[in-house]
Amino acid sequence: MPAELLDGTKTANEILGKIRSQVAVRVAGGGSKPTLATVLVGADPASITYTRMKRKRCESVGMRSLKVELPAETTTEQLLAEIEKLGNDPGVHGILLQHPCPPHIDERAAFEAIPTAKDVDGVTLGSFADMWFGLGGFDSCTPGGIMRLLRAYDLPLSGKRAVVIGRSAILGKPMAGLLLAADATVTICHSRTPDVAAAVREADVVVAAVGRAEFVKGDWIKPGAVVADAGYNAGNVGDVEHAAAAERAAWITPVPGGVGPMTIATLLEQTLVAAERDA
Amino acid sequence: MPAELLDGTKTANEILGKIRSQVAVRVAGGGSKPTLATVLVGADPASITYTRMKRKRCESVGMRSLKVELPAETTTEQLLAEIEKLGNDPGVHGILLQHPCPPHIDERAAFEAIPTAKDVDGVTLGSFADMWFGLGGFDSCTPGGIMRLLRAYDLPLSGKRAVVIGRSAILGKPMAGLLLAADATVTICHSRTPDVAAAVREADVVVAAVGRAEFVKGDWIKPGAVVADAGYNAGNVGDVEHAAAAERAAWITPVPGGVGPMTIATLLEQTLVAAERDA
Repeated sequence: MPAELLDGTKTANEILGKIRSQVAVRVAGGGSKPTLATVLVGADPASITYTRMKRKRCESVGMRSLKVELPAETTTEQLLAEIEKLGNDPGVHGILLQHPCPPHIDERAAFEAIPTAKDVDGVTLGSFADMWFGLGGFDSCTPGGIMRLLRAYDLPLSGKRAVVIGRSAILGKPMAGLLLAADATVTICHSRTPDVAAAVREADVVVAAVGRAEFVKGDWIKPGAVVADAGYNAGNVGDVEHAAAAERAAWITPVPGGVGPMTIATLLEQTLVAAERDA
Repeated sequence: MPAELLDGTKTANEILGKIRSQVAVRVAGGGSKPTLATVLVGADPASITYTRMKRKRCESVGMRSLKVELPAETTTEQLLAEIEKLGNDPGVHGILLQHPCPPHIDERAAFEAIPTAKDVDGVTLGSFADMWFGLGGFDSCTPGGIMRLLRAYDLPLSGKRAVVIGRSAILGKPMAGLLLAADATVTICHSRTPDVAAAVREADVVVAAVGRAEFVKGDWIKPGAVVADAGYNAGNVGDVEHAAAAERAAWITPVPGGVGPMTIATLLEQTLVAAERDA
């Protein structure tokens, strides 16, 4: 029996619907429109597409988006100044710095310039620690989106063995913290792990965040496991061999239509929360 | 063949010897004595012993210790004010808040009042994130001490399967980050893990930080594994069944004389670093 799909598009749309109602109530009550500033440095075509998509989705739920586009030759200092300006702007509730930035930019410094209260993309060190300690900061959006998707399908995590493949700052590492906070037994695999297959074979929950097409083979998947595929490689291919994995898993995300829509829904949900906390 | 011992006392003494020389050079050159403030709230006998031990060790290497003792009824606000005073005192290089604080204290707020540059005990959220991202902040002292001990014996970590048992804020969670930064494949087990034995059986490196006497059974240990026992329970008993584990492990820490001395050595090493960074 092939796996059931964890439908990210449908779940994200439900979340977006709720956000839309809440924004309408807020605005009808005289509140300001929740506002997300998207900051893009340079003109990478994929980054242009991503930020446009986020702004569009933002406006589709009645929120405001503020487009900040800086030339590729922007210095770290200029970028920090721009972010600080947005940080101090009471009309901006959330700040998203689209990454990757051009290589001459100190990206960590740029992220850290975002005030934690406006870090709706969950990229600062403060948000990272908050995720590990359950302190109520904002989630990194992709791991946060995966958690929301698993919860939407009532999939139990407590006591389950979860394996995260990848240890990036915005995906693998925060993902591990969120799964641990949900009481899973968490293993983090990465490029130096000699036998990823062995770890995956024991996993009740697999999160693939490698960025390599079909890196996770279908026959690695434990029968009945839950598979979240955060990969998005050329040709709409995920990090998991989808068809073969679906033969063994109980639940699996499609690519596209799985993790991707949940990432944006999480971003917008957190922007609304930031606006509400700000009153 | 029984395991060889990871001699924490000997390794810590080597570190302390180096610190002593460096402090002597610093002071001879007209530099200030590196100064560690120990803050103790209340009169818990074990905490009194620990802080006294740390101060004594501090002075034994030529550093200065500053004893701050506050009554058990101290409020969070009063404690924060005290820590901020130390944070602003240019004569204080490192601040150690002995935990646990009395239950009415907001311990997280108190930790966060310590400036990261003086967080030589590695308890702030900033230090936590730094450990996960390799950003050069201070280590939590017990995990940092374990890493120093493993390195002193040239034990390889890259590509090894490491299992951390326990997920406390100052031990299990930072330990996982440090092992990951050393390229181990890291699994975090905890009270909700149904089968800790199964995870330990696959581990090349085991760090026990449970706080339950002999929780880790000897026959769980994979032959040839490295075992670091951070437990220190009544009667000088660790979290690992020592004798039985030593029959299978290649390397194991004794209790006492293993992790404990390394914790204090790490604290003092980091206090010296804080002083040197401060110039």
